Amino acid sequence: MTARIGIGLVGAGRMGSIHARLIAGAVPEAQLVGIADLRLDAARRLADEVGGPPVFDSIDELLARTPCDAVLIAVASNGHLDAIRAAAGAGKGILCEKPLALTLADTDAAIRVAGAAGTRLQVGFMRRWDPDYLRAKARLGSGEYGRPLLFKSLQFDTEPPPPNYADPGVSGGIMVDMGIHEFDLARWLMADEVVEVHAFGSSLAHPALATVGDVDSAVVNLRFAGGATGTVELARNTTYGEDVRTEVLATAGSVWVGRLPLTHGASSSGGVGGTAGSIASDTVDPRVPRFEMGYLEQTRAFVRVIADDRPVAVTGADGRAALAIALAAARSMDEGRPVSVGGIP
Amino acid sequence: MTARIGIGLVGAGRMGSIHARLIAGAVPEAQLVGIADLRLDAARRLADEVGGPPVFDSIDELLARTPCDAVLIAVASNGHLDAIRAAAGAGKGILCEKPLALTLADTDAAIRVAGAAGTRLQVGFMRRWDPDYLRAKARLGSGEYGRPLLFKSLQFDTEPPPPNYADPGVSGGIMVDMGIHEFDLARWLMADEVVEVHAFGSSLAHPALATVGDVDSAVVNLRFAGGATGTVELARNTTYGEDVRTEVLATAGSVWVGRLPLTHGASSSGGVGGTAGSIASDTVDPRVPRFEMGYLEQTRAFVRVIADDRPVAVTGADGRAALAIALAAARSMDEGRPVSVGGIP
Amino acid sequence: MTARIGIGLVGAGRMGSIHARLIAGAVPEAQLVGIADLRLDAARRLADEVGGPPVFDSIDELLARTPCDAVLIAVASNGHLDAIRAAAGAGKGILCEKPLALTLADTDAAIRVAGAAGTRLQVGFMRRWDPDYLRAKARLGSGEYGRPLLFKSLQFDTEPPPPNYADPGVSGGIMVDMGIHEFDLARWLMADEVVEVHAFGSSLAHPALATVGDVDSAVVNLRFAGGATGTVELARNTTYGEDVRTEVLATAGSVWVGRLPLTHGASSSGGVGGTAGSIASDTVDPRVPRFEMGYLEQTRAFVRVIADDRPVAVTGADGRAALAIALAAARSMDEGRPVSVGGIP
Amino acid sequence: MTARIGIGLVGAGRMGSIHARLIAGAVPEAQLVGIADLRLDAARRLADEVGGPPVFDSIDELLARTPCDAVLIAVASNGHLDAIRAAAGAGKGILCEKPLALTLADTDAAIRVAGAAGTRLQVGFMRRWDPDYLRAKARLGSGEYGRPLLFKSLQFDTEPPPPNYADPGVSGGIMVDMGIHEFDLARWLMADEVVEVHAFGSSLAHPALATVGDVDSAVVNLRFAGGATGTVELARNTTYGEDVRTEVLATAGSVWVGRLPLTHGASSSGGVGGTAGSIASDTVDPRVPRFEMGYLEQTRAFVRVIADDRPVAVTGADGRAALAIALAAARSMDEGRPVSVGGIP
Repeated sequence: MTARIGIGLVGAGRMGSIHARLIAGAVPEAQLVGIADLRLDAARRLADEVGGPPVFDSIDELLARTPCDAVLIAVASNGHLDAIRAAAGAGKGILCEKPLALTLADTDAAIRVAGAAGTRLQVGFMRRWDPDYLRAKARLGSGEYGRPLLFKSLQFDTEPPPPNYADPGVSGGIMVDMGIHEFDLARWLMADEVVEVHAFGSSLAHPALATVGDVDSAVVNLRFAGGATGTVELARNTTYGEDVRTEVLATAGSVWVGRLPLTHGASSSGGVGGTAGSIASDTVDPRVPRFEMGYLEQTRAFVRVIADDRPVAVTGADGRAALAIALAAARSMDEGRPVSVGGIP
Repeated sequence: MTARIGIGLVGAGRMGSIHARLIAGAVPEAQLVGIADLRLDAARRLADEVGGPPVFDSIDELLARTPCDAVLIAVASNGHLDAIRAAAGAGKGILCEKPLALTLADTDAAIRVAGAAGTRLQVGFMRRWDPDYLRAKARLGSGEYGRPLLFKSLQFDTEPPPPNYADPGVSGGIMVDMGIHEFDLARWLMADEVVEVHAFGSSLAHPALATVGDVDSAVVNLRFAGGATGTVELARNTTYGEDVRTEVLATAGSVWVGRLPLTHGASSSGGVGGTAGSIASDTVDPRVPRFEMGYLEQTRAFVRVIADDRPVAVTGADGRAALAIALAAARSMDEGRPVSVGGIP
Repeated sequence: MTARIGIGLVGAGRMGSIHARLIAGAVPEAQLVGIADLRLDAARRLADEVGGPPVFDSIDELLARTPCDAVLIAVASNGHLDAIRAAAGAGKGILCEKPLALTLADTDAAIRVAGAAGTRLQVGFMRRWDPDYLRAKARLGSGEYGRPLLFKSLQFDTEPPPPNYADPGVSGGIMVDMGIHEFDLARWLMADEVVEVHAFGSSLAHPALATVGDVDSAVVNLRFAGGATGTVELARNTTYGEDVRTEVLATAGSVWVGRLPLTHGASSSGGVGGTAGSIASDTVDPRVPRFEMGYLEQTRAFVRVIADDRPVAVTGADGRAALAIALAAARSMDEGRPVSVGGIP
Repeated sequence: MTARIGIGLVGAGRMGSIHARLIAGAVPEAQLVGIADLRLDAARRLADEVGGPPVFDSIDELLARTPCDAVLIAVASNGHLDAIRAAAGAGKGILCEKPLALTLADTDAAIRVAGAAGTRLQVGFMRRWDPDYLRAKARLGSGEYGRPLLFKSLQFDTEPPPPNYADPGVSGGIMVDMGIHEFDLARWLMADEVVEVHAFGSSLAHPALATVGDVDSAVVNLRFAGGATGTVELARNTTYGEDVRTEVLATAGSVWVGRLPLTHGASSSGGVGGTAGSIASDTVDPRVPRFEMGYLEQTRAFVRVIADDRPVAVTGADGRAALAIALAAARSMDEGRPVSVGGIP
């Protein structure tokens, strides 16, 4: 076997753990060479699970003490820029969870420091690596489906953000934290730019979110440069599991990704008594990551990029463009009017 | 409009009512010219519903007093032969519910009298006229799916037969009453003959059926002349609606007809609590006939056959062949051994 | 049997034909006593199909020459008000296809003339009578699903309107012609009023629609008085059949109505070759009406209302409210801003 | 972290690789301490992928040179007994892939040597550990579904066995190699014993199998001691992916596990032209293991059993009972008659 790419993981929380387990179990071409987290015990617990790499209480310690080729950033969103600065300063390849930063200015700074350091910066839009989404993209790109007319995408979670993540100053709020995935898909699948958005939001399910300026559900209208339209729906309280569904209606066909999150199990009991009954389909445990394959392929692609010294597929500019849409949608909710994406500072 | 084909309906029970409503509402090329039933009040109620044709207390009265082109026979199975005799004697075209009769000898008699009278005799295998089954047949016939290897078909009802129909001397028992549809499909879809069967049965759900020599569920293995195999399952007690599913696995493809009987409605409620929930899909009310379109197209085809003086598509010989399989399956259950279809007297 | 309610049908086009066949075939408590259409040959053809009621070249002729209890209006939308005036003037009960009229002023006039004549006026929102929608409504009304948060509904047709219906001056345009169903569902299922809407539209699939001021696809954001949000999507060009899907996410559950319009048939052929294949599910022929049961129950309910002298369930006020939302959505598309429903003249 | 259970893997082929990757990536409580395979290069490639444990060319070498707590046996079926003998001789816990052996005599020998050595012997019926099957079992055990009446299970693979596995002397043939999973499920889900079977088979898809005395598809009727019936279908040539579906119809309900192997992706293209189209659902790549979670939970349960010194859940006796049914089914195919399971030598 050729030498493995050494990856330092920054952040041992929920996302960091997903990444660490996948790298250890399913990316033989990479090796987890260190885990950094201010909460050293969390880093240690995760390290124990994935073969015992050394742990550090900061990205700086990790960079100083462990030889590595690349860094995977999975800390809270408001800490991304600092981590990118440190990693770029050390000349490491960077795979950063979305969003790169919470403002366009910080995003530009992140892109700039990576560019100046001549290092690779890939954004963690893992759905682009999911096999179902890849097939949808290939279909739309084949020409066989005609011209895309209408984009639909929804993301319904089962729960509000955890307390330490409820502050939009940390998470970016629903549009940036959740919606950015749909906005990236909108650009990618439609092969077009979103130029104007309109959004309504509400916090009827989790009124506490209103006190920090966030909402728990929202609907967003999209207008694309080429004239097509789109809609995005976000919510935080399904009873049936995590729900992600995307659909593109084109002039000569349609593609769908996602369906209600069903397992292979179902049952029916109780009497019929002359009237119709029902069949209950079990839904996927919301703790099971829907996009495991996406995370995996994303990391594999990143590792190959580092190993082969090639450009990344999902760039800082992609991260910036999706963030601009998210910020425009958030502003539209606030101001009660359609907002031009180009006008976001 | 050209003259309509006049149809006399014999039998105003469940099946007769389905046919009468469909003819009145959706077969403009035919006209219901009379309804005969020993239970004259049932005939009258049905006549009131479908535009008020005259009613009679026997097929003989109907044939004597109302000019008609054809007769649709929907009385209990053990009355089919007498009705066929009467209709053939009067030179009328005949559409007879399955089975033509409860024994091969009576079936042969039915075919003979129709043949001697030079009248048309079509058997009511309505699934052959269902659009989904027709597409499956066309696919298998196209050659694109290769050679059929394995036939699977099930029919699960929600209830045991009604008391007046529980006697196998009236209904023919589960293999003849229910299974004959699957056995006809087996021959038709596989374009092959069933040469040997083996069956197990049980009456655990409705033990009363055992007292009359019938069962409430059964499994049947089929062996085809060309070497393929098949399986049929029958039962009488689902909690979720009427279930009919058929599947053919071929060397280069598969076709499916039927799925769990779901409506367009579903719901989920109650908390998730960190674990997976479920989505309950409403099932079709078992009183809604699944094969309405099949009954309709069957009658339309029969009417065209009468009008155009052409041969029927589903012949007495088809009825005889399916009955032979059903009788062989019933005998296999009784005798605990595989039974050759050709050996049924 | 008690006396039947006599219904005069006005309009022998696509919708009129659906109603006529259902009344003749499945509403024994009503009788079709006449069909009026300026195109007398269309009226005659339809009459032939449904038992031969007399035909007339105008609603006035029908009212003058045939005793009837009620009138079912199924002419083009821009002719509804005149027909309502005639029927109300003759004191007949009225079941009118949606929309009552193309403007709020004309709708108010329609409601006024019916009110002044003391006659019943029911609007043809047939989805309210569909069993799946009725179950969804009952579920949301049960309290078990908590508070509704987010309403989603889409209607995708397979084709643009026929040439004689493409003029928004005749049909009302996409928001009135198609969207009004979703807007009525929004009010009914959410048990709340829509107060503000925002819409984007496009005519990329059928550019000819742009020349008459209409679009072929649109997305609409809804804001409800109680704070909830919603989204409606409309389009006119699916390749897979007619698609209607509605969903309500509530604080303690979700309800769904509709799914991709699949039949019971599916197939797979061709080689796998080590990679995944696909299973093609047949979709419903778009000419088969999805809401036959809704139309039927709607008419039955109307007939009972007339027979029992009770108030209608779906009132002129319901028709007006849904139209106001549709007009606000159309204006939002035109003016590029959110529009308050209350501000529509 | 407490000490890990050391596992030696015997067999680096397809099944061994699945196990190795899962242990390395997702069973932190175990450690892969060695891989033995006569094909040393295969062992080495697999070891490289999973963190580099030492490799050996035989189980004896592995046992002699690496301290381990347990052995996982994943060699060809005809090699199981020898490996069990070696592992039991060394006093190691044993998790053995199904079947334990190809004859009841060898199975009895395997159970005897493990018993004499006082070591644990668990059989690899991984479906018993799949979450969907576990829910089905729990439902049927709850009493809410009444008495099980009819068992249905099918397993359709995409391909015939690889050349080195086509010999029934190596694999056991279709009933033992594939069917044993269904026969185990039959006993487990029905909580009853199969007493008699009848089977038909054919080799129309892969005639080469006939030359070695095997078939490529088969149907099996089951009769249970308590009177219930069942059916099992096996085949080797789907075009749409690997298909495993199980269903139990009980007196007061039904449970389903499995459905057509669909992903989250679908598409439709091409014109409708007034007729129905279709929606193509992508199916799962057959190389993706359907029962990954089952394998994982199976190994975790085994590791806990070893760590806690408790009895195994799926015993040698379970392996023997399922094998007896498989052998009876194979004999039924050969001899053309129903075969009593108790009569298998």
